[in-house]
Amino acid sequence: MSVSAGTTLREIRERKPLVHQITNYVVMNETANATLALGALPVMAHAREEVEEMVGLAGALVLNIGTLSPHWVDAMIMAGKAANSTRTPIVLDPVGAGATSYRTDTAKRILSEVDATVLRGNQGEVATLVGVAAEVRGVESISAEDGAADVARTAARTLGLIASVTGAVDHVSDGERVLAIANGHELLAAVTGTGCISSAMTGCFLAAKPVEPLEAAAEALAAFGVAGEDAAEGARGPGSFHVNLYDALAALDPATLDERTRIT
Amino acid sequence: MSVSAGTTLREIRERKPLVHQITNYVVMNETANATLALGALPVMAHAREEVEEMVGLAGALVLNIGTLSPHWVDAMIMAGKAANSTRTPIVLDPVGAGATSYRTDTAKRILSEVDATVLRGNQGEVATLVGVAAEVRGVESISAEDGAADVARTAARTLGLIASVTGAVDHVSDGERVLAIANGHELLAAVTGTGCISSAMTGCFLAAKPVEPLEAAAEALAAFGVAGEDAAEGARGPGSFHVNLYDALAALDPATLDERTRIT
Amino acid sequence: MSVSAGTTLREIRERKPLVHQITNYVVMNETANATLALGALPVMAHAREEVEEMVGLAGALVLNIGTLSPHWVDAMIMAGKAANSTRTPIVLDPVGAGATSYRTDTAKRILSEVDATVLRGNQGEVATLVGVAAEVRGVESISAEDGAADVARTAARTLGLIASVTGAVDHVSDGERVLAIANGHELLAAVTGTGCISSAMTGCFLAAKPVEPLEAAAEALAAFGVAGEDAAEGARGPGSFHVNLYDALAALDPATLDERTRIT
Repeated sequence: MSVSAGTTLREIRERKPLVHQITNYVVMNETANATLALGALPVMAHAREEVEEMVGLAGALVLNIGTLSPHWVDAMIMAGKAANSTRTPIVLDPVGAGATSYRTDTAKRILSEVDATVLRGNQGEVATLVGVAAEVRGVESISAEDGAADVARTAARTLGLIASVTGAVDHVSDGERVLAIANGHELLAAVTGTGCISSAMTGCFLAAKPVEPLEAAAEALAAFGVAGEDAAEGARGPGSFHVNLYDALAALDPATLDERTRIT
Repeated sequence: MSVSAGTTLREIRERKPLVHQITNYVVMNETANATLALGALPVMAHAREEVEEMVGLAGALVLNIGTLSPHWVDAMIMAGKAANSTRTPIVLDPVGAGATSYRTDTAKRILSEVDATVLRGNQGEVATLVGVAAEVRGVESISAEDGAADVARTAARTLGLIASVTGAVDHVSDGERVLAIANGHELLAAVTGTGCISSAMTGCFLAAKPVEPLEAAAEALAAFGVAGEDAAEGARGPGSFHVNLYDALAALDPATLDERTRIT
Repeated sequence: MSVSAGTTLREIRERKPLVHQITNYVVMNETANATLALGALPVMAHAREEVEEMVGLAGALVLNIGTLSPHWVDAMIMAGKAANSTRTPIVLDPVGAGATSYRTDTAKRILSEVDATVLRGNQGEVATLVGVAAEVRGVESISAEDGAADVARTAARTLGLIASVTGAVDHVSDGERVLAIANGHELLAAVTGTGCISSAMTGCFLAAKPVEPLEAAAEALAAFGVAGEDAAEGARGPGSFHVNLYDALAALDPATLDERTRIT
């Protein structure tokens, strides 16, 4: 195991991987700008007519069901299968799983038809997908943080992937090990789509470090958390924090990042 | 009648109602962030496969036809009927009614199939729906402010709902009384989607005060207007004003809000 | 030839033309706000049920294939034909042409069925559409700037329109003349959708100056570039630059704009 968010960030900025995102209407602009600010290249494409070709150009695929509908789900599965065929890493963000049966069923369907590399969700969403009780309200999880490490380990083991469970402290597991990431700031919860951005960041780090997905997923959350800490400085509320977040992502310094990440 | 935006805002922040929004692509991020900043929880879901279940979790439903298309309209009507069956309050924002016959007809169709609690639009949009002449260009209303109170009263009486007509001075009516709200700032007209945000805010206030929809609708506009006044301080133009708006919504103080609202 | 961005900007602010945009999900909010900040009125409408009627109200039509799908492409062509029938100017932004065959084919199909007034893209996109070799990664063009003037002239001549090729220096051509625009700032490349915004700005200028589309297209890029220069002052990164951009567009001064534009 070699965790170094700084090294991977340097790699992202040098190679500028294309990160194909099939995501929700609410956050498309935000995840695209976060991807650019970090140093990678975003592309949003959801038509069944092109997703297989587009993902062939990409270093990672991010699937996010935040505003799902049947055509989009079909496209996600087509893109996911194409990504699997070329061993392109995939992040699945099961937004709102547990809130409606359509979201829960869709997340499970994608997991059954596509080999996702990383499942990135909040505790309620991830717990739902492995049958652990959780309270979910809409797309916000209300669960206590206790047990997040267990949920991550169980999900990783059950689903055979890296489970990345975000919260006040994030937990990333491959089913054996659990990495806890203590970076971040409470204002991240005051802006919509920061969970989706963390999934996009995970895609960027996976594109640069596909052979160590556990480490890449943890580094992504740590780097994003550090940017959140920087963004909170001088923020007067969620609006200015949100703006600062892009400035902070662009200003992340690979040379000092590892000193600031709190991954255990 | 008891108008107290501060009391309702406190209620919103304590209960954090889920506000289900089926709205347009242009403003989804903005209305979600405004809902969060105010203190409620937004959820965007438009698939016919889930809207009935999702609205069952919500304290209010907001329907907005800003970028309408047939599937979305179907989903709005399905969600609206489900909301009616559980007496969940509904806000309809008839964006661009009067600009094209598709928008006018769709707004009328929703009003005929769904019992909306509040119709929130600009003067041209609302006037169009009750057959009063109005000049509409695209989604912007150009009508003079004169007569807004009459349009609100007529619409409320004709349609059997609360009509909330926004402009330089806002007018909210239940067909008998008309409340005029004089809060706000001209920069609100320089940012796209502020009308849509005021509809989302109306949904938040209705979720917390469903039994007094006239008062809730007026309080929502007053609170949003106060936030606009705060956001204008230090703004250098529409970009910084827009950012400040979220900071100002989050910083609204229930204890002093009633002193600042100008509802008559 | 009479190039005066200041004169056209004054015209935009006086007449407030409606600019109908059928564009991508990622940038809708951004292009709407940029259009408003400049002084025109945006309207986003994509349903086949209304695009012909809506474009009849507009001073210009902007078609952008950034997140294309079949229904949207159909609507673009319907709107384009309606615009042609009333000689309403059209801007086509072929986002990602060259990245997938669906994008390339769609851009070519629109060009064959609709008489576009201005084709606004980066060098790779425009080159692709006239069969010139270009490297395209996703929706970002990686081509060298050399040859941009040639690509613009060739595209204009081959396609019979104004070709507007943006980059570090922009080149706009009618097939005979080539105008080079040296305004702008490197931070524009750090924010997603600034290319799309430049297409929206082109629509605004065309609406105000339809009889001189070469000049209007160049003025739009110059004015947007000047706003970018202003926005860079005091920006701490892409987030604050993005916010500043709307402030800067709204603050553009028609009286001094011509002194600042660098069009040759």
